[in-house]
This record gives sequence, structure tokens and C-alpha cells, in this order.
Amino acid sequence: MTLYFEDLKPGRVFKAGPVTVDPAEAHDFASSYDPQAFHLDEAAGLASVFGAMVISGWQTAAYTMRMLTSSELSRIANGLVGLQLDKVMWHQPVKPGDTLSAEFDVMGRKHSRSKPAFGVVQLAWRTFNQHGELVMSLENAIWVAVRDPDGKAAA
Amino acid sequence: MTLYFEDLKPGRVFKAGPVTVDPAEAHDFASSYDPQAFHLDEAAGLASVFGAMVISGWQTAAYTMRMLTSSELSRIANGLVGLQLDKVMWHQPVKPGDTLSAEFDVMGRKHSRSKPAFGVVQLAWRTFNQHGELVMSLENAIWVAVRDPDGKAAA
Repeated sequence: MTLYFEDLKPGRVFKAGPVTVDPAEAHDFASSYDPQAFHLDEAAGLASVFGAMVISGWQTAAYTMRMLTSSELSRIANGLVGLQLDKVMWHQPVKPGDTLSAEFDVMGRKHSRSKPAFGVVQLAWRTFNQHGELVMSLENAIWVAVRDPDGKAAA
Repeated sequence: MTLYFEDLKPGRVFKAGPVTVDPAEAHDFASSYDPQAFHLDEAAGLASVFGAMVISGWQTAAYTMRMLTSSELSRIANGLVGLQLDKVMWHQPVKPGDTLSAEFDVMGRKHSRSKPAFGVVQLAWRTFNQHGELVMSLENAIWVAVRDPDGKAAA
């Protein structure tokens, strides 16, 4: 079912994943976008502030986006269109071979004043590893089409 | 020259780039991490809220990270270790073929209370396209080693 602003009620939770971090994919991502030694080399990882080879925090975010795009939230009418992120934090390093899962909570929403056919929905993202430990969290404002802009949609 | 906390004085600006968005690389990134039709298909992009095929906002961030890792800031003693991001905003869509550049401003810093050998430095990231338009901005707290933890390093 296609999702609209009206469907994203505060308190609703969407679950997603899992996805396992493929070591070759982690190497490719780091080589392309974050080629720091602690993302590419075991010995450099051991000697780093992380004490192990860890994946780029940007790839943890990208994997969480992958999970989001295969979750029920991918059915939003106008797609997943991010407006802003806040409080993006990496709580635990992620290592090649780890398995991630994610939860997306609807925290709040408001209609757009300038474009009544749309609203802004606030999501909280949480990404966990296979031990249930929180590895990343963030707050994300997305742009969501209203099903019934001229009607009596819930505020 | 290796950079330490003492070197990252508020007001200092680091420039980076340029990098051109390779269409095949944009397709690969979207396929792997953000497989929404408006990132993969011209016709779907035209019909979307963007009015054009655009790259994933996560890839704009990843390209900016690539530029950061080849800037002078890559010489930070302990590497580029992000603690938190805030106010991540995408101001203009980025299209395959666009050329990006970036600036990183030191906004502030403070010594760590719990670990005197480190401090937290606040950076403002700004990413521009080939027309000089701001396409992405964010605030980033990074973890930086102190050169002289027992001495009289500038506060």
C-alpha cells in the first residue's frame, strides 16, 4: 500500500534489515569514498583509535539507507526524500562481517505551509549490530506527499 | 605536516576538491545503497519531485568525505574520526556530471575532559557545484589528538 503523510502517525515504528557487511564491499566503499588506513588494513586498524579495522561511518549510514529503501517506508508516494539530518552519532564501530538491522520511528510531523500537498515527517533512525548494540542513530526530516490536501487529513 | 588539536584554530578554512560525479559511479552507488527510481532512471527522475535524475544525497556526502580525505585535514594525527553530525542539509540536487568542491571551516574546539590527550573540533562542511551553488552543508564534530597534552597548548 502506498504511504502518505496521513499514514505516518507519531509512534509508528518500521523495522528493516538485516544486511551483512560484505568485506569486499566495505573495501570498495572505503577505497572510493573514505580511504583511511583504518578502513582498509587490519594492522592499521589495530594501531588506530578504534583498535580494529572498522568500516566507514558513511557506509554504516549507506547500509541503513539500503535497509530503509527495502522497508515498508519505501512505499511513500513521492519516494524517500530527505530534507535534513541531525544528531547523527556512531555509538560502536562496525566491522566487516557484522550484521546490521534498523528501526525507524515516526517522531512527529507537520503540514507544509507553503506547499499544502506535502508535509514534513520526523523520523528517528536506529541501527543495531548482531549483538543488539546500537551502532548509529540519527534524526531525519523527510518530505511526504499528503493523500488528501483539500480534505480533513489528521494534523 | 601532521596536524594536531593545537593547529586547528577557529577561523581556519581548508579547501578541497574538485571531484566530478561519474555517471557509472552514481549508478553503482544508487544500486547498492539507495535504489530509488529517481536516482537510476532519467524518465523517473523527470517525473519525480526533483524534476531530473539526481544522485543520492548520501553519495554527495560520500564524495565530500572523499575530498576531505585528500585535503590537508587528512594529515590529522589520529585520522578523520567523526563523533557527530548536525544540520545536514541538501540545498540543491546534484546530477551525474556535476563537479563538486568543498570547504571545511574550523568553528570551535574544546579539550576532552575525560581524555586529556584528545579534543573535539567543530567543523562546518560546505559542498558546492560547478556553478558555485551550495549543494550540501553540515556541522561535524571530530576527535583530534593533542600534540602536547601536558604542556600549555592553546585552549
